Amino acid sequence: MKRFLRDDVMEGGCGENLFASVMELLLTAAVSLAGVGEGLVHVRPELAPNRSPLSLGPGRVEFSAVALGYSFSGETRSVSAALRGMASDMLLYWGSGSPPCWRVMIALEEKQLSGYRSKLLSFDKKEHQSDEVKALNPRAQLPTFKHGEIVVNESYAACFYLEVKRQLLFMNSSFISSVFKSQGTRLLPEDPSELALVYQRVFESQNLQQKMYEVAFYDWVFPEGERHESAVKRKRESLIEELKLWEGYLEKTVRGSYLAGRSFSMADVVCFPVVAYFPRLHCPPERCPRLMEYYHMLKERASIKASWPPGWIENPVGPESLKNL
Amino acid sequence: MKRFLRDDVMEGGCGENLFASVMELLLTAAVSLAGVGEGLVHVRPELAPNRSPLSLGPGRVEFSAVALGYSFSGETRSVSAALRGMASDMLLYWGSGSPPCWRVMIALEEKQLSGYRSKLLSFDKKEHQSDEVKALNPRAQLPTFKHGEIVVNESYAACFYLEVKRQLLFMNSSFISSVFKSQGTRLLPEDPSELALVYQRVFESQNLQQKMYEVAFYDWVFPEGERHESAVKRKRESLIEELKLWEGYLEKTVRGSYLAGRSFSMADVVCFPVVAYFPRLHCPPERCPRLMEYYHMLKERASIKASWPPGWIENPVGPESLKNL
Repeated sequence: MKRFLRDDVMEGGCGENLFASVMELLLTAAVSLAGVGEGLVHVRPELAPNRSPLSLGPGRVEFSAVALGYSFSGETRSVSAALRGMASDMLLYWGSGSPPCWRVMIALEEKQLSGYRSKLLSFDKKEHQSDEVKALNPRAQLPTFKHGEIVVNESYAACFYLEVKRQLLFMNSSFISSVFKSQGTRLLPEDPSELALVYQRVFESQNLQQKMYEVAFYDWVFPEGERHESAVKRKRESLIEELKLWEGYLEKTVRGSYLAGRSFSMADVVCFPVVAYFPRLHCPPERCPRLMEYYHMLKERASIKASWPPGWIENPVGPESLKNL
Repeated sequence: MKRFLRDDVMEGGCGENLFASVMELLLTAAVSLAGVGEGLVHVRPELAPNRSPLSLGPGRVEFSAVALGYSFSGETRSVSAALRGMASDMLLYWGSGSPPCWRVMIALEEKQLSGYRSKLLSFDKKEHQSDEVKALNPRAQLPTFKHGEIVVNESYAACFYLEVKRQLLFMNSSFISSVFKSQGTRLLPEDPSELALVYQRVFESQNLQQKMYEVAFYDWVFPEGERHESAVKRKRESLIEELKLWEGYLEKTVRGSYLAGRSFSMADVVCFPVVAYFPRLHCPPERCPRLMEYYHMLKERASIKASWPPGWIENPVGPESLKNL
């Protein structure tokens, strides 16, 4: 009996390894199709004489690829149990309202991993500089994110990791993923031109975040004695120009679109927490009417409601830092 | 009869049954690809038994997947011809020495797409603000990158796009990719923990770039009248701390390692152009000895030599902006 883990990397070449890979692919395809599969698969080529069609029993799957002349049997576990197991291996240290933390939380929700463990830390009390965080993150920043022994702290990196890891759970193959629907939102589309736009908006969103920070939190970014009216003015103008770009992008789409097209994507995961600061900090809506429409649409989304900053629920009205934009 | 275009090279020899299985997989994948992308299947003729349901002639492949109910025929072309075709559809506007431009160029070289078209523009002459660039990039920045009708301007986005697009050319399946060796360097590893580290370093490199910029190009980033000795001092200290982090990462690896492990990866593509500024701007090597070892190893790499900034070849000695770090 050949026993292996689905996440094993199968190297090229023929022989038992490739045989196992092929068997795994076919068997998992069948299991995924039946909606029951996960985890260890036992490939039992000795069952080959049994040419019965696909049959499923409790906790067990038997599959015969008549055209290929192979039969298989494997034990099954439920997908939801696997997801629960995966989520409980995850630990997120976060701070309320921090866009980098928030985007990781949205990604976790979208990936149906809401059972992850988390620790809410206080920036005010400098809890993010604790030894506990520093042990995982030499930058002593939030988010700090751990999945088993894997540590991914940069917020964009964690979002990308969650997207790919989630695919791997189901099938080490984007082809099968596209045929056999997996749970959770697909955040990076398969189509190359759609994907290109998602990547473009994902990385462009860093401009919006940086420029918003430097205006809304100017006194926090620049210490006393290094502040200048000329800089404030220039940064405000730069932020207004940045907003015009995003307005332009949305104006080219039909109403109800997301940041990178008709589907919710990684661009929304990383950018929404930044967009949400504009209404919260009283930015005049006429500065970015389409972005505000987008905001009102997105704030009703389950993943975003589930991850809404607790500090914002407690104090729904934010400071007026962007009122004069 | 469906028609598909694919390009792949099959390695090794297989038994007849297994060969049929592999072909079934290829065909199955091809079904999903009809209407998605282009490419060609190239099967080494000596591996192809003359048997139903698969038959192969020189320059032409015909087979049917009985189990799936599809038949295919396609013309075979070489992989290199497909790559040349892909590269000639690409156009890069770039500036000499710009880290964002350089990283896209390294990715293109690593992906064996060196036949891409390019236009070297002068920042000094403000050619990046030309209408030609603005038509593709509302930010009027370099790089500006176009592949067919797809425009991806953010440098990280372009690198990610090239990685994924290149995989798609070969097979829309990471499983198949691992079996059928593709040309070019794989920049995002398949193993989840390796991938997590690559993502982490990719996004962390933005800190190094930002901090290097703000010290080396302080007068360019901050206009006259907004410059402060206190800020210069703080930013220098911050850059020194940043370098210590990267030194720490490298110290935990064996000598000869890359930024995210034993293989060259996306982390090196995006970060090397930033690292290269330290020796060029006369940063004392004792500030980052391991990073300098890494630099000397990488600068001999073909993709990096091929994309070395022409301005640096002309003037090998850079200004002394980091001499006093």
